Amino acid sequence: MTTNLRAYLDNNATTRVDPQVVAAMLPFFTEDFGNASSTHEFGAAVAPALKAARQAVQALIGAEFDHEVIFTSGGTESNTTALLSALDTQAGRDEIVTSAVEHPAVLNLCQHLEKIGRAKIHVIPVNEAGDLDLEAYRAALSEKTAVVSIMWANNETGKIFPVAELATLAKTVGALFHTDAVQATGKIALNVKDKAIDILSLSGHKLHGPKGVGALYVKKGVKFSPLFRGGKQERGRRAGTENAPGIVGLGAAAKLALEADYARIAALRDRLQQGLAAAIPCALVNGGGARLPNTLNIAFGYADSEALLHKLDRTGIAASSGSACASGSMEPSHVLRALRVPPLYLQGALRFSLSRDTTDAEIDAVLQHLPAIVASAREKSPLWVEFCKKTA
Amino acid sequence: MTTNLRAYLDNNATTRVDPQVVAAMLPFFTEDFGNASSTHEFGAAVAPALKAARQAVQALIGAEFDHEVIFTSGGTESNTTALLSALDTQAGRDEIVTSAVEHPAVLNLCQHLEKIGRAKIHVIPVNEAGDLDLEAYRAALSEKTAVVSIMWANNETGKIFPVAELATLAKTVGALFHTDAVQATGKIALNVKDKAIDILSLSGHKLHGPKGVGALYVKKGVKFSPLFRGGKQERGRRAGTENAPGIVGLGAAAKLALEADYARIAALRDRLQQGLAAAIPCALVNGGGARLPNTLNIAFGYADSEALLHKLDRTGIAASSGSACASGSMEPSHVLRALRVPPLYLQGALRFSLSRDTTDAEIDAVLQHLPAIVASAREKSPLWVEFCKKTA
Ligand SMILES: Cc1ncc(COP(=O)(O)O)c(C=O)c1O
Ligand SMILES: Cc1ncc(COP(=O)(O)O)c(C=O)c1O
Repeated sequence: MTTNLRAYLDNNATTRVDPQVVAAMLPFFTEDFGNASSTHEFGAAVAPALKAARQAVQALIGAEFDHEVIFTSGGTESNTTALLSALDTQAGRDEIVTSAVEHPAVLNLCQHLEKIGRAKIHVIPVNEAGDLDLEAYRAALSEKTAVVSIMWANNETGKIFPVAELATLAKTVGALFHTDAVQATGKIALNVKDKAIDILSLSGHKLHGPKGVGALYVKKGVKFSPLFRGGKQERGRRAGTENAPGIVGLGAAAKLALEADYARIAALRDRLQQGLAAAIPCALVNGGGARLPNTLNIAFGYADSEALLHKLDRTGIAASSGSACASGSMEPSHVLRALRVPPLYLQGALRFSLSRDTTDAEIDAVLQHLPAIVASAREKSPLWVEFCKKTA
Repeated sequence: MTTNLRAYLDNNATTRVDPQVVAAMLPFFTEDFGNASSTHEFGAAVAPALKAARQAVQALIGAEFDHEVIFTSGGTESNTTALLSALDTQAGRDEIVTSAVEHPAVLNLCQHLEKIGRAKIHVIPVNEAGDLDLEAYRAALSEKTAVVSIMWANNETGKIFPVAELATLAKTVGALFHTDAVQATGKIALNVKDKAIDILSLSGHKLHGPKGVGALYVKKGVKFSPLFRGGKQERGRRAGTENAPGIVGLGAAAKLALEADYARIAALRDRLQQGLAAAIPCALVNGGGARLPNTLNIAFGYADSEALLHKLDRTGIAASSGSACASGSMEPSHVLRALRVPPLYLQGALRFSLSRDTTDAEIDAVLQHLPAIVASAREKSPLWVEFCKKTA
């Protein structure tokens, strides 16, 4: 099957950098290439550009002050810094409360911290709809909790967590509240200044900005311990020569994200969901309730997602089975296991993640090709043949 | 004074990204923008490009295997990861041996580790010529040493340390040897495979590559503990979506660095040094012996470097007083203090750092303008007037 189609529906893995973002970055490679900390002319153009980028990120997340934004190298660094800082600044508190569906950047770090005896970890389960077990959450919170880390939205299902409420609860025991907003940023309004959220992580490449740059929001007054110590960059909170082109790119991406039409994206996603559910039997949408406008996680019983993805790819359609970090691994996603997706569906989940670049034609392409791809994959499954006989 | 001249002689702070590097990066923003971990077509072009970049860095530093190279976000991350990993992987060893002239990315981290009781730090002094006190070095090494961290070349003076010998000595007590080669990389041959160096840090923006990307060399077989845990990127040694454009840029920069003509740069530097020493009385070159070909640190007695730099800047000439991180601060450099530069010279040091972009005209400009600038600055110094009377 050959075609000229290229449909990119894996925007939760990473997004295409907006050409306007690239244009904003370019001068900082070869013209205004100076070190932002230098006092001479070559550095002079850089500091104001970094400030403007900081203000753009501030506006995007609705922070009260621009200096609450610290630039980092991405979501993983932001998450790591957040958790380690929370432990380091709160003597006597050595527990972390998190959820079973966090990104590996949080869960693997937590596992490690527990292994080395640095922290005790409470992993709060979710129900079939992906909702956090609130009773378990309340029970886990205590005077020993250093930090709660619950993502704003899940990367695999798009599920949105009630972080404002969860943060308020965390305050009742005096714990810090961190949220991994890597997937939420730019897709839904965040407005951190109204919330009890202390620390927030975001990453440029999930919102049409460059890879290798992210930010950490640290609310004014929250104690902070830097991960990188050295030069006085970022007010001493993140040493290392500022990645000026990357930061300027993130700023430009933040500005563009504020203008994006997410109603259009949600409509496309809904059309995809309805079309697939109507055309393909035994399809199950994962993650109920509030969801990111761009994400659809749908499992096809009696099918294998890697085989489906491979055929989609040959058709020119890019999707994924879960997070990019886990791509190629044959293990079912920890998120879908936490949701207790039924065994016959667990291996057949696909994630379609849209963006403002997504076109009607891309959605049409999936609707045109996927039903036949699923059907032909199922033909090879003895369980499916059995099932059809029974239900015929 | 107005002029069209723009002379950039602050390449140890950061370098102009080579236009060929930018060209190599560009496709990875908007075309091959996929996540390197994705298995579909959009990710397919990325992994081979990352591999080629890894091999280019391998070639530049003379490593035996390409998988000894781990990409990071820069020199500070590399240094931080190196020291923390060395402590974490060697139970029973909790001492670090380092030098008094290391970059703040090493020294400030060490200070912090000592403060929180995580490590005991031995800071080895240097003599007036900048040479490490070998006796103190040997005395500091013990069965408790987790890691030695001595820079390959100093950022302020260009002084080159005998890291091969120092590493061999570290082995006699079973310690790991880390070297901050952020300034040495691309300027002198490193050839790590012949040496007892276990871990090495480098940073892209010091060699005409992009900011926000660096690398850590970890010799095969050396135990390693990742700083970022999460996705399986970099063989599980550095989680986080790969900064594909940045890594490709670093690879391109590494290739170009291998071709650079450092004899020409050294000749320009020597001409600058000789010209300044001949034209300006009471000038002192800091850091004797083996030096990077591009660096000149020269102190003018009875003058204030910030005033000199300001006037140079207005002439279109960019230099610095020390490291960029310390720019604007009025404290004399910890490096020059470690070298015991005489008090009357300590505040008057300038660092000129050249690159392959440096032209004859830029050197001419400094030689033309600086003598008058120093002379006029000194006129305001009562000590200088006194001194002149005495020596007249
Ligand atoms: C929810 C979430 N958190 C963290 C990350 C890690 O971000 P980065 O790859 O920029 O380090 C990702 C994406 O990879 C993510 O989806
Ligand atoms: C010797 C040395 N080490 C480390 C660094 C830090 O590197 P980066 O700014 O890329 O984090 C620098 C430069 O700033 C340096 O000169």
